[in-house]
Amino acid sequence: MEETLTILKNTPLFRDLTDLQARKILEISREITFSRNETIMEEGKTGDSMYIIIKGSVEVIRNLTLDENDAGEKGKNKVLTKLSSENHALFGEIGLLEESRRTATVRALTDCTLREIKKGAFLALAESDHELGYRVLTNLAHLVSSRLRKADDDIVKLATVLSMVLQE
Amino acid sequence: MEETLTILKNTPLFRDLTDLQARKILEISREITFSRNETIMEEGKTGDSMYIIIKGSVEVIRNLTLDENDAGEKGKNKVLTKLSSENHALFGEIGLLEESRRTATVRALTDCTLREIKKGAFLALAESDHELGYRVLTNLAHLVSSRLRKADDDIVKLATVLSMVLQE
Repeated sequence: MEETLTILKNTPLFRDLTDLQARKILEISREITFSRNETIMEEGKTGDSMYIIIKGSVEVIRNLTLDENDAGEKGKNKVLTKLSSENHALFGEIGLLEESRRTATVRALTDCTLREIKKGAFLALAESDHELGYRVLTNLAHLVSSRLRKADDDIVKLATVLSMVLQE
Repeated sequence: MEETLTILKNTPLFRDLTDLQARKILEISREITFSRNETIMEEGKTGDSMYIIIKGSVEVIRNLTLDENDAGEKGKNKVLTKLSSENHALFGEIGLLEESRRTATVRALTDCTLREIKKGAFLALAESDHELGYRVLTNLAHLVSSRLRKADDDIVKLATVLSMVLQE
């Protein structure tokens, strides 16, 4: 359990927490395991939980184009990134904030041990410890805003390429 | 001042605040005015403040493509949206969280009265009132996450069109 606590305190979402606060997070989480190749999270499905990788590694895959435009072909999937316990990785963090559809599929590359945190349990904890809530939400807002910045850059790049192609 | 307080409490960032908490936000903000056509915020420049529209309306413009790829032409600008005091509008909210480059230009469509909040003053207030910090950061995270969802959708649409054009 001490090892799990150390991993938790090293994730970008839960750093800055005191030992006591990190223990409270640990208490509302549960261990969950997946076998190699199992799908942990599926793009398009709704979810209200997030995951911290304690052992193993996963790949994050996203459908790059809309299926109906692919003339019978399946939408083109793209492996966005690989995450492992060594990077203190977490995913699905928006599920902590709101029940929403997942924007990517996450698949186990090895047998995995994860820690799952449900939105309801987290929000109840944050209401009982506003300092903890403030710290975690600040970290979450930083994470989401850095992903938004990247997405905005991707939009400009795609629009630029499209505009060049259409001018040819 | 009571009118300004009412507008502030109706923005998506500061709703759920108690009267006292909303007054604390008002105290750390300052009034700032712009004339019609003046640029309030410029895409690409860094900033660490956010704005609430008290009177007037503004347009939000973004450079859609990279300048260097436009063969001498200026990058194509797109008016993304118009915001006014009637929609309880705010902008630049990520500046409350971190000093970062602005992702859009904001220009005054009419003479405008705004309320400016600086990151440093907000973070100091949030440290002294964690409940206030938690509420505002929760709202901010919702705002940013809904913008991220929209950006992700735009990426899929652009990639789909690009893939169709390239197949022709």
